[in-house]
Amino acid sequence: MAVPTPHPTMTDDWRDDDGALRSDIVEAVTSAVASNDAARLKDLVGEAHEADMGDLIAQLDTEDRRKLVELLGADFDFAVLTEVDETIRVEILEDLPAETVAEGIAELDSDDAVSILQDLDEEDRSEILEKMPAVERVALKRALDYPEDSAGRRMKDDFIAVPPFWTVGQVIDHLREADDLPDDFTEVFVIDPGYHLQGHIRLDRLLRTKRPVTVTEIMEEEVRTVEATEDQQDVALMFERYNLLSAAVVDEAGRLVGVLTVDDIVDVIEEEADADIKALGGVKPEEEISDSVWTTAKGRFRWLFINMLTAFIATTVLKSFEKQLETMVALAVLAPIVASQGGNAATQTMTVAVRALATHDLGPHNALRVIGREALTGLINGTAFALIIGVVAGFWFSLAGLGVVIGLAMVCNLVAGALAGILIPLGLAKLNADPAVSSGPFVTTVTDVVGFLGFLTIATWWFKI
Amino acid sequence: MAVPTPHPTMTDDWRDDDGALRSDIVEAVTSAVASNDAARLKDLVGEAHEADMGDLIAQLDTEDRRKLVELLGADFDFAVLTEVDETIRVEILEDLPAETVAEGIAELDSDDAVSILQDLDEEDRSEILEKMPAVERVALKRALDYPEDSAGRRMKDDFIAVPPFWTVGQVIDHLREADDLPDDFTEVFVIDPGYHLQGHIRLDRLLRTKRPVTVTEIMEEEVRTVEATEDQQDVALMFERYNLLSAAVVDEAGRLVGVLTVDDIVDVIEEEADADIKALGGVKPEEEISDSVWTTAKGRFRWLFINMLTAFIATTVLKSFEKQLETMVALAVLAPIVASQGGNAATQTMTVAVRALATHDLGPHNALRVIGREALTGLINGTAFALIIGVVAGFWFSLAGLGVVIGLAMVCNLVAGALAGILIPLGLAKLNADPAVSSGPFVTTVTDVVGFLGFLTIATWWFKI
Repeated sequence: MAVPTPHPTMTDDWRDDDGALRSDIVEAVTSAVASNDAARLKDLVGEAHEADMGDLIAQLDTEDRRKLVELLGADFDFAVLTEVDETIRVEILEDLPAETVAEGIAELDSDDAVSILQDLDEEDRSEILEKMPAVERVALKRALDYPEDSAGRRMKDDFIAVPPFWTVGQVIDHLREADDLPDDFTEVFVIDPGYHLQGHIRLDRLLRTKRPVTVTEIMEEEVRTVEATEDQQDVALMFERYNLLSAAVVDEAGRLVGVLTVDDIVDVIEEEADADIKALGGVKPEEEISDSVWTTAKGRFRWLFINMLTAFIATTVLKSFEKQLETMVALAVLAPIVASQGGNAATQTMTVAVRALATHDLGPHNALRVIGREALTGLINGTAFALIIGVVAGFWFSLAGLGVVIGLAMVCNLVAGALAGILIPLGLAKLNADPAVSSGPFVTTVTDVVGFLGFLTIATWWFKI
Repeated sequence: MAVPTPHPTMTDDWRDDDGALRSDIVEAVTSAVASNDAARLKDLVGEAHEADMGDLIAQLDTEDRRKLVELLGADFDFAVLTEVDETIRVEILEDLPAETVAEGIAELDSDDAVSILQDLDEEDRSEILEKMPAVERVALKRALDYPEDSAGRRMKDDFIAVPPFWTVGQVIDHLREADDLPDDFTEVFVIDPGYHLQGHIRLDRLLRTKRPVTVTEIMEEEVRTVEATEDQQDVALMFERYNLLSAAVVDEAGRLVGVLTVDDIVDVIEEEADADIKALGGVKPEEEISDSVWTTAKGRFRWLFINMLTAFIATTVLKSFEKQLETMVALAVLAPIVASQGGNAATQTMTVAVRALATHDLGPHNALRVIGREALTGLINGTAFALIIGVVAGFWFSLAGLGVVIGLAMVCNLVAGALAGILIPLGLAKLNADPAVSSGPFVTTVTDVVGFLGFLTIATWWFKI
């Protein structure tokens, strides 16, 4: 049987099987840019999706990016800038005259325009806004007045709203005839004259209803709404929880001001997960792979400095046992195992705790139970490794007592690590600090100090040194 | 001015300002369950969204969960089971007769049914499938034949497809009259008699077009398609990249078999990020906060065991310098700082590398540049901490030479750590192993060994001990 070729998709054109950009495309574009061949360049990238174009730009060097934007001129789609790292975005924008940027941004959806403008410094932003048409300027300024990372910054201010007394026929005619409608939409909002939300109608419902039926008869009154000032992370949790495609955004007076769609929320979820992963690894959330060496080094220095301070605390503990370490060098050799095993167990607990706090799976209702579970888990694994490491150490140094000492220290440190791993994130969350960012150094300090102190104290007492 | 109350949303009813379930709701339900009051229970939870109901069930104890499901009887919505942890899901399902489960699952969308069935063991699954109507059984069996975590397992097999020669009027009449349509949909697919995809039409487009226009005139020919066997993570990347609301799923012969919607993909993104965070923290992705102590301890043991082995390697290095440690106990006190500072720097690099590999921001096109950047970053921060820690150590132990030695060791270890942090994830990815899962122990081994070995070798040479 002949197997028909699957319908070609746009993705197939620019990407290989792994979803990476094809290198021959990148090379063709680079060579068109190098030879200043605007016609060939437009031919190559004319139909490209903004996301593909963004990935392409990310792979060019700074000079080629500048030239590419220049060669494309008015054909350069500013939506591409929402798809690249902030470093690249700012680099490109700084090179362009404010008029060009104002024109390019005016063509975008409000949420894309905001996401580009919010990264610029105050002065550049004002200059660009001044060059924009008044309607867009006012709308963008209002959006930028909402707090960073709020629903108001992410929403589109373009939506379809109809009065409750219209019929389905009137709504359909309005959709057919109006020419200032948003590009794509999945629902129609129903509002009163004061812009207060009365309900919404999904497009499939509208399509399946006869023309004479009134809007009130088919609208769903219960609409998921978010306040414009609400944090994007909370909004994302709501979208996930209720599998929403969109939500209405209202101002503090309950008036409909915009709509949030799930494709924006997908970005939020990705960003927030990214921020948590980086925070746990000691990297600033804003670090990007296109950052310069200097920016990267500076950003990471702070975390390493804090860790150094906690390491000094552990060192002070070790130093106070100098006599014992001198008397019995085996203690110096084995002490790091106790600390590191405790640190790893504590990191496991901390990871689970930080994650569960972020998804609201851990809260006052189950904190006690989870603390108990973690302590017990620490006790079980502490005992297991006490036996394994105790036996190994006893034989290795031909000294059974050493096995007993390291075993006892191991149990203590794994229980301490488990408690630190859960209590520190819980405490930080209670203080409204981000547990993902700050837990690490505290937790490691506990396991280093308890590891060294416990091991050497027990050893001092056991061997009477 | 009187501020109108915002339109009440369903969320407001059950959740507090933080989005957590209200405790009085949980208490009311618990008491209704305790008093076997089915009527009151149905009254309380009758209108609840499956996600709220899932969170509620998670907060009850095992016995109350069982009773709640029993009291609700046929009113229990099996979609709730897609919203709880696997542990809870399996616990509830095991308690119910296969007939009840078969009936409950038959009412769900195919993707929800698959996600519930796939966690059960072979035997229970077959028993339930046998009790289902033939049509559903065949469809579910086919979906379960697709690989785990593939698009085919996530898709809905319910979609709207029309032939290309229909007019818009015919499509709308079909939508109005057919009664076996999916619950909600955002687009209509256009297929030939062999089920090969010709294009698609978004509902807004359909609504805005006059009845006599034919489907071919308004359909978009370019549809993002995925193969049913494709991995969900790749599919999620595609959704994110192109801001898709849905994608067509085709079989290996290019026939339309289902549709993937963005709300399913939101779950995939969340799960994959969750898996990466947990993997980096040494926790199995399937660990859940509702797991028993024993399951948790067992799951975490393996990672701790591997870390213990790497710690033993580092200990062997330390042990081989026993003579030097005895002669100069300051070396024993300071060695852990060198190792830990290198480990932390390496973790930073590794975190960024793992994340960039997952999002395809790191690949062959920029690997060399990123390796260079990381090595340089290691060199800069290595030098910075060499100076700081060198000076502190020199004064602390009143021995300038010690400062020089630890400084040199610090530079070596931070550069080694940076290289390990980038090369190990890259290497693992090349070998098709998940870098998030396996990088940690390798990276720590490098920084521990280079830290101890470097520091003690330099010390041996400098102090001639």
